[in-house]
Amino acid sequence: MSREQRPRRERRVQHAINQLPWRNYRNPYSPIQAVTADQLEAIHNASLRILEELGIEFLDDEARVILKQHGAEVQADGTRVRLPRELVLQYVAKAQREFTLHARNPEHNLTFGANHINFGSVASAPNVSDLDRGRRPGNFADYCDLLKLVQTFNVIQFTGGYPVEPADLPPSTRHLDAHHAAITLTDKVWHPYSLGRERIEDAVEMICIARGIDKAQLAREPSLFSIVNSNSPLRLDIPMLQGLMAMARHGQPVVLTPFTLSGAMAPATIAGALAQQNAEALAGIAFIQMVNPGVPCVYGGFTSNVDMKTGAPAFGTPEYTRAALVGGQLARRYGLPYRSSNACAANAVDAQAAYESEMSLWGAVMGHANLILHGAGWMEGGLVASFEKLVVDVELIQSMVEFLQPLIVDEDSLGFEAMKEVGPGGHFFGAAHTLARYEKAFYAPLLSDWRNFENWRLGGALDAAQRANQIWKTALADFAAPTLDPGIDEALRDFVARRKAAGGVKAA
Amino acid sequence: MSREQRPRRERRVQHAINQLPWRNYRNPYSPIQAVTADQLEAIHNASLRILEELGIEFLDDEARVILKQHGAEVQADGTRVRLPRELVLQYVAKAQREFTLHARNPEHNLTFGANHINFGSVASAPNVSDLDRGRRPGNFADYCDLLKLVQTFNVIQFTGGYPVEPADLPPSTRHLDAHHAAITLTDKVWHPYSLGRERIEDAVEMICIARGIDKAQLAREPSLFSIVNSNSPLRLDIPMLQGLMAMARHGQPVVLTPFTLSGAMAPATIAGALAQQNAEALAGIAFIQMVNPGVPCVYGGFTSNVDMKTGAPAFGTPEYTRAALVGGQLARRYGLPYRSSNACAANAVDAQAAYESEMSLWGAVMGHANLILHGAGWMEGGLVASFEKLVVDVELIQSMVEFLQPLIVDEDSLGFEAMKEVGPGGHFFGAAHTLARYEKAFYAPLLSDWRNFENWRLGGALDAAQRANQIWKTALADFAAPTLDPGIDEALRDFVARRKAAGGVKAA
Repeated sequence: MSREQRPRRERRVQHAINQLPWRNYRNPYSPIQAVTADQLEAIHNASLRILEELGIEFLDDEARVILKQHGAEVQADGTRVRLPRELVLQYVAKAQREFTLHARNPEHNLTFGANHINFGSVASAPNVSDLDRGRRPGNFADYCDLLKLVQTFNVIQFTGGYPVEPADLPPSTRHLDAHHAAITLTDKVWHPYSLGRERIEDAVEMICIARGIDKAQLAREPSLFSIVNSNSPLRLDIPMLQGLMAMARHGQPVVLTPFTLSGAMAPATIAGALAQQNAEALAGIAFIQMVNPGVPCVYGGFTSNVDMKTGAPAFGTPEYTRAALVGGQLARRYGLPYRSSNACAANAVDAQAAYESEMSLWGAVMGHANLILHGAGWMEGGLVASFEKLVVDVELIQSMVEFLQPLIVDEDSLGFEAMKEVGPGGHFFGAAHTLARYEKAFYAPLLSDWRNFENWRLGGALDAAQRANQIWKTALADFAAPTLDPGIDEALRDFVARRKAAGGVKAA
Repeated sequence: MSREQRPRRERRVQHAINQLPWRNYRNPYSPIQAVTADQLEAIHNASLRILEELGIEFLDDEARVILKQHGAEVQADGTRVRLPRELVLQYVAKAQREFTLHARNPEHNLTFGANHINFGSVASAPNVSDLDRGRRPGNFADYCDLLKLVQTFNVIQFTGGYPVEPADLPPSTRHLDAHHAAITLTDKVWHPYSLGRERIEDAVEMICIARGIDKAQLAREPSLFSIVNSNSPLRLDIPMLQGLMAMARHGQPVVLTPFTLSGAMAPATIAGALAQQNAEALAGIAFIQMVNPGVPCVYGGFTSNVDMKTGAPAFGTPEYTRAALVGGQLARRYGLPYRSSNACAANAVDAQAAYESEMSLWGAVMGHANLILHGAGWMEGGLVASFEKLVVDVELIQSMVEFLQPLIVDEDSLGFEAMKEVGPGGHFFGAAHTLARYEKAFYAPLLSDWRNFENWRLGGALDAAQRANQIWKTALADFAAPTLDPGIDEALRDFVARRKAAGGVKAA
């Protein structure tokens, strides 16, 4: 058989990415408590005082009607809403402690709450970059390639939003193409944006087609989630609120995430930023529970700080890590699932990108986040989705989920007989105990290069970013779309075509 | 005043490294427990069984005499020593729970034990590298430059050994020049090697001169420490044991660190490697306490794993992190101070170097290590001391010690008035609450670049390694040796000259 005749399958096996299999993960460790119980209560009380005394702006008229009906004190000729503390706590308590998101492929279902932990892709970057083509504005081709990587890498368990904005598509119908790609290029959980009611309604129709279910079943089996950022400080805008209400009415979870950048959109103290985060998150979640009591929702924490000299946002700072841990303490106080992120401010896929991401990830993991957004590919404080950073992050996450595996300690693993066999001064390479474990003893990395310097140099002296570049190219070359029932495929195309013919969403 | 006339002081202020001030640190968090209490007991019991049934080789004759005198079962015509579990625990219990190491500059004294945490430099690398000159064998000029960086950076709190081997100096007198440089280029705690008795005796003489004290005071005020690695599996060699005995007799602490590389010098399971680590550490520490009951010593953990395909050692792996955490649990079980490391296997100062180091550091910090060796500059599994990696690690450590600062939560920091002042939709840049905190609100990084992409690009698009290169050069250009009493200076030079004239240490 000539080289050219070699069947495609064999070629793919040769290329294959050596990664961890798909799994659902749990966090076996006790969370790190970054504040005392008294301090936690002080933050809690400060946030309730904010909602009672200062209030929060709900810019949408319908939202304010609902809030008033449920007992909130709504400003007569304005948008400010004051929420008595009992009202907030009464409604927040209605949220589910744990829920499952249903993927098109049931093997990719995810559970949020308790000690479940799930990692998602980068989301919402306006730009995209890689080592070959540099930095460029977001576009649909890169959007699709990033989705293919989401599907390829098992530890990227969901699409956290558009990995990059497909800005070359018209805004009125962009979501239709974006959702269609998310459904067909992946079979994992995906995320529509809460930008008005219509986009959510379209997403609901499409997930129902994709899963072959009706809306009643969708309400019983949530399959979409959407991040809603409050417009910190203390404001929720109309498109966000309308999308949020649509999600809630369909029984789909919203992740209410204030973006409380300390020193810019929040006080220049972490305690103050956390109090504000908590106020905004609780107000949003209480409102969601007024719209549809019992609908699942997630407490989002995204408190970081700015560089006080320049106003530049920073991520993966020591302040960020502590805030991520306290965010977890707050979410647990209310029995809510918790969302955190893998964030960094670096401009290159270098040591800074890695250490800032690690500081974020450790905050998320040891804060017991259930949903880790921007898990893979986030750079420049969210301004870029990087192909190489995505691969670096897959290695970070793989390493982290292996760290989450409980250590096995039993007669066999304690290895007394192996030590007896080898004896003082010997080595374990050839011991029976070692040979029995040869294949699976330890985590095998995706990206790390453990060769000695000379072999590494002879192999081209590629740094981690350059090796990541090779890996994502291999992954794209090997990509095969997940199977999709032809009838569903056709129905989805029909839906997109019909909605496009009708003009999509009117200008916001 | 012309530019040339500008006084040196002013020039140095311009260059000045923007770093955290010197401090002693404590770890406010509860350690992460990576094994249950039952699992910990299983490891404990397995290690005592190893010492009872398999025993451990003490290659030094005098050491075996001491062991026999104290009740160990010494092989009649061999070097194997079996230690009854009660004997081990009885002597381990004599070690101090906490002790202080005295630096030449008392402001740089360090306390080990409880929740004290101290970070040291890279140690014992045979090679050295930087971006300008590449990778080269260790030499005295680089050794001195690395010491200058140790002195410069406040979060590098001690010299963990020779940062790089000054291999161009003759072995018989190398330690004299190396110690002299450690004393004069830094005023921080330093480390002589336990390579035979004579080198330790020379170090003791030199620290007594440097501190202006006698040996009795030195015994009351420990000022040196030495790492002793067992020759895993289950062996302690002659030079190590003779150095160890000399240290113990002078009341100076030894850090007993088995290098239990799972799959090579220890079983291919983390539980087995930890059982072996514990056996070797306890045997060494029990022996130290037989030599001089009550002398401080430290439980060292350095369990990692090899790549099973190639035998290459790996560091900062998920297995490494869990082993570092369990090492802390073991040390605390015996009331011993704990040593861990900042290790990585990377060949370049890239994302891999940073994420492996972070995985190591988090294991060390959340394992409540009191002494973190190789804190700054360690690369390639210890084969290289890197100037750029040292700067990257200073940023990692600075970020970590800021993370260890307890969060302030009080009326003022909760910022209610600031939120009232700013109101919904505003920003906090100009708020009184912000302006009052402008200077010191947040951690200001040494290395991280938080500029936006365009400014970073216009600034030369330097990655973290390239920026680190600039920082260590600035630090060396600005270096001023710490003050030293001229009498002490002369006495030290005299001592070195006399010992050199006498030929130094005979060949080992």
